[in-house]
This record gives sequence, C-alpha cells and structure tokens, in this order.
Amino acid sequence: MRTLQVELGARSYPIDIGPGVLSRLDTQGQRCLVVSNDTVAPLHLKTLLAQLPEGTATCILPDGEAHKTLDSAGVILDALAAGGFHRDGLVIALGGGVIGDLAGFAAAVYHRGIAFIQIPTTLLSMVDSSVGGKTGVNHPAGKNLIGAFHQPRQVLADLQLLDTLPSREYAAGMAEVVKYAALGDLAFLDWLEAQTPALQARDHAVLAEMVERCCATKARIVAADEREQGQRALLNLGHTFGHAIETASGYGTVLHGEAVAIGMVMAADLSYRLGWTSLTDVERLRDLLQALDLPTRCPPIPPEQFLALMQRDKKVLNNRLRLVLLKPLGQAIITADVPPEPLQETLLAAT
Amino acid sequence: MRTLQVELGARSYPIDIGPGVLSRLDTQGQRCLVVSNDTVAPLHLKTLLAQLPEGTATCILPDGEAHKTLDSAGVILDALAAGGFHRDGLVIALGGGVIGDLAGFAAAVYHRGIAFIQIPTTLLSMVDSSVGGKTGVNHPAGKNLIGAFHQPRQVLADLQLLDTLPSREYAAGMAEVVKYAALGDLAFLDWLEAQTPALQARDHAVLAEMVERCCATKARIVAADEREQGQRALLNLGHTFGHAIETASGYGTVLHGEAVAIGMVMAADLSYRLGWTSLTDVERLRDLLQALDLPTRCPPIPPEQFLALMQRDKKVLNNRLRLVLLKPLGQAIITADVPPEPLQETLLAAT
Repeated sequence: MRTLQVELGARSYPIDIGPGVLSRLDTQGQRCLVVSNDTVAPLHLKTLLAQLPEGTATCILPDGEAHKTLDSAGVILDALAAGGFHRDGLVIALGGGVIGDLAGFAAAVYHRGIAFIQIPTTLLSMVDSSVGGKTGVNHPAGKNLIGAFHQPRQVLADLQLLDTLPSREYAAGMAEVVKYAALGDLAFLDWLEAQTPALQARDHAVLAEMVERCCATKARIVAADEREQGQRALLNLGHTFGHAIETASGYGTVLHGEAVAIGMVMAADLSYRLGWTSLTDVERLRDLLQALDLPTRCPPIPPEQFLALMQRDKKVLNNRLRLVLLKPLGQAIITADVPPEPLQETLLAAT
Repeated sequence: MRTLQVELGARSYPIDIGPGVLSRLDTQGQRCLVVSNDTVAPLHLKTLLAQLPEGTATCILPDGEAHKTLDSAGVILDALAAGGFHRDGLVIALGGGVIGDLAGFAAAVYHRGIAFIQIPTTLLSMVDSSVGGKTGVNHPAGKNLIGAFHQPRQVLADLQLLDTLPSREYAAGMAEVVKYAALGDLAFLDWLEAQTPALQARDHAVLAEMVERCCATKARIVAADEREQGQRALLNLGHTFGHAIETASGYGTVLHGEAVAIGMVMAADLSYRLGWTSLTDVERLRDLLQALDLPTRCPPIPPEQFLALMQRDKKVLNNRLRLVLLKPLGQAIITADVPPEPLQETLLAAT
C-alpha cells in the first residue's frame, strides 16, 4: 500500500494506492450519498456499502460520457436534497472519470460545497481525474464547459477494482499514463516500454508503481498551479486535438483516452513539422501507444470543422489558440504561435 | 460618489455607490454577456448597452424568485456557450438579487469560473446580495441549496436605478438594512429611526450613506469569514425563520425581505422569551419595520411544518438547529441551545 499526499494547504488530501485500499475509506462518521453508475454498481457497490451504515443513500446513474450533463448533476443534487443532506453531508464517487466529475461537481455546488471522496474504478480516473480537483459536466458546445474546482478529501485507488475493467477502457487509461512520460519524464517512457507486458497483464505491483508515479507528477503540477494559470496547462498535452475529436465524433464514440492518444500523436506530428522533435520520437510515441492497444489515427473530420472545434477549447485566450507541443519529446511547452500551414498539414496527415 | 473596497486578498473588489455610478463600469475591454430580467431590461438595459460595444450579447430571463432555478442558470450557460465565450469572458448582472445570484452562479461554473460584475437594481441587492460572493439557485427542497462562492470584480450601486423600484420591493430592501442595525449597530438603528422620512422619500444623499454603512458592515464581516465558518452566520438574523416562511408560502408569494422582516421579529420574540432582550426592544424593532412599510406578522403555517422547514435550513449542523438571536437588540449571537418550548411559543404567537 502506498499513500501519496497532495499538498494544497488547507485542501491537502491523501491518495491511497494498492489492492484492497477500499477498506481505508474514512467517512469521519458523516452521512453519505454514494454516486455510481449502472455498470460499476453491480460489480463493486455491495463491497463498498458493506463498510457503510445500513440505509446509506445511493444514486445510480446510467453509464457513459453522454450522461455527463447538467441534468445528471441535477439528479445527484435532487438525491442530496431528498436525503435531507446538510452542509456536513459527504458525497462518495464510485466510478470512472464521468462519475467522479459529476459527483464532484454536485458536491462543489450543494450548499456551496460539501465534502467529497473519490473511489476511481478505472485506470484513467486513477491517474488523471481523481487528482487535481477539476469537476464538471459537458455542454453540447464543449467538453467540461461547466464545472468547479473542488478538491476531494480522500482518494482511494484500489487496484483490485481494475481487474474487472474492460480492455478498451484499460487501454484508454494507459493513454494518460503515456502522457505524463511524454510531457516531462523520458525515464518513465523507458520504464513504460520495458514494463509493457506486465502492464498488459495488470500486475498489481507494477500498476502500483505506475499509478503512484502518475499521481505524484500530476499532484506536483497541480500543487504549483491549482487554478491552471500556468504549467498545469501542460497536462493538456493531446487534449485540444482530443477534445475536438471527441466532440466531432459525438461524446462516447471515441473514449477520452483514445482521443488523447490520437491527439498526442498529432501534437508530436506538429512538433516535428515545426522542427522541435524528431520523426524517430514521433514514431516512438506512436509505437508505445499501439503496443498498449491504443488507436493513433484520427477518424475522418474535415479540417475546417476540426479547427473550429479547437478554437472553442478552453485553452483559447484572446481568441488565440494555445497548444501544448513537444520541444522535444519528454518536454512539453505551451505555445500560442503556431503558424497555420503546419497545423493544416498535421490535420490532413492525421486521418 | 463613494467607493468602498471589499478586502479579500486577490479577490478584493470595489463597490461604487451613488447616483450615476453606472458610468464607472470597467469591462477591461473584455467581451461580455449582460444578464437581466424582463422587468428591469425595459427600464435600464438601453442605458447600460450604450456604454458597451455594439452587438454585446444579452440574456433576458423572466422576472421573479420562481425562476431562480438550475434550469435558468442553464439558460445563461447556453447563452455563454452560444456566444462562444471563453475563459476571458465577462458576465454582467443587471437586476436584483435573483439575477445577481443566477448570473454569478453561471459565471462561477462556466469554464470553472469567469469574471463577473454586479449592477444591483434593487435596494435589497445593493445592501445584501451584491456583497459577499454568495451565488446560487433554489431547489424545491430549499432556498439557495445549490450555489458557489464567487466574488464579483466590481459592484456598481447606482442609486438612480432605485427611482423606478416598486414600493413593495423598496420596503423589502429596508428589511435587510434594519437587520444590520439589529445585529450589531444600535447607533445605526437610531439613525434609521431619525431618517425614516428621508428614506421613504428615497433621498439620494441619505441613501448613499445608508448603503455604504450596510455594505461596509457586510464587507467587514465577509472579509473576516468569507466561507461562513463563524461570524458571517450572524448575517442570517431572521433568515432561518424567513426561509421557512418563503418555502411554505411558495417562492415569490412573500418577498425575501418581507420574510426576513417577519423572521427578525420572530427572532426578537424568541430572544425575549429566553430573557435575552426586553419587550420594549421587540416592539422598537417591530415599530421601525412597520414604519418602513414592512409586514411583521407571519402567514398561517402549522408549527410542525414550520419546524420541519427550519430543520432543512443550511444553518443546521449535526442535525442541531442553530439560530441567530438577539442578546440583546443590537448584538446578535448564534446558538444551538434553544429549548423547544419557547420556540413553540414564538411559532404560535407569530401568526
């Protein structure tokens, strides 16, 4: 069992990582509402409820990114109100990133903020969305357009929960793992290449080291820049391309991690066209993603539509598109100075 | 023209008070969405838009507390998304407390928080809701059950806007004014009694002094306790009773300020029954409220229902009802130790 402390002053919290850490849940005796979805609940809700007082309230939502809406947040808020929860209520999210973001957002706005514990059940949510306090819902006009910063009080990354994760979702999580390596840690990229077989076998010991490394990197970046004024934006490597792919395809068609994998290859390709990274490095990144069962080619999206969707991304400031690129692989930078021609070439070459 | 600075570190902001301060609006060149309602917009929107670039986006909601819902917040969020606003967008609230709370909440959660300027058009919102950063919407289960803390960047309290305010709304605002006096400033209570004729005539000079005094008191309390962990709760004098009255009557039947006026008299009555304040002081408070055209008797609500609604209030912690009472008039305290009998007597005597 490993414990990582996310240092955010009064909002600091621990992430427990390892098989069986679910038993370390600490509700501090508060009444809680468990939020989950109809895929995860049949697998893991009973185990969780066995640790909680009888009659603990639950709110089970339909599974999928398509349900990450303001309406779904309203359903959780209705459940909190119906349960008579006050400011001392506690929300427990049992699920992947969608459930974590939805439950976290509901906790952020119920009584202007109540306590919240995350139990991520997917690899992606363990290494990404459960660290950093971003909560929110999608809007037809864009992903995560509505949300709040709200830190959890505790995160439990129980690796046993990954045993039942479908292969496609597991692979999608690996995309965010590779992202941490690509944006700032070439030694970790070496390690991932060497451990690929153990990772594909979901070896708990290797996974524990990997999840801790990812969470530590993210926690360090978030601690330095909680509100995403500066370097936190580096975590968006592959995401501006990725969000456009997700929106164009309709939420849920392409998984978030899959879109990020494709987006990272596009970011690497553009970095190569700008002379910032080598073709060998682009191929190295693509090979690792493919070895981890991830897609690396973009679905067909007309370049004009792709560009328009990128322009709607949150990273746009003063109408200038800001992109996270590689200069070189292993060192991400943020730039608002991308000439249109190489970007066009990348969009045309991606599909 | 008076300017009061609300000191909240990086979130500090100025409140400009006086006739004509609307001209001091500072958008810092940002694109903005003006949010208003269908009562205020015909009166004041044109004046505001004359100061802004042509084609400035607007979102006009139906008037009234009944529309302070998550759905209305969704309409504002849709307008922001449809307008292609990014993180550097700005929301301007032109209206009373409902518009301020709704627009502020939308600004708080759009892109996880964008800038926001308040132009209160009612007395109540000038002295109360535009100071302190509380934003939110109602839920059928309770008032302001959903919300966020989000400070405005600027508040413009233009006293000219009060010239068109209906008498009943003007009186409702005076209830919150009297609250500041009752909870901590007997000298201000003397002043209000002496200035009642000038206040009823809406004299701009007298109003400027009054609004500044109220905002200064609230700003001082909020600066010391932004997240309402302690003394900020004193501002809820009359509100636990008042919220129950509003909920039981159906939002909008009794105005918020009217409910607070009745609630303050009930709080004073209970304080008297506990031996904390004199009957003379209860009558003094009631007389001033009546002189300001406010109701002081409760609509008929069965005591059991009244108690149940009070129990649902946000001020409940660990299932103990916490009330703001007077010990004596001019000095509010928070207590969780109210014996049931005197509370019952107050509820029975109120109608």
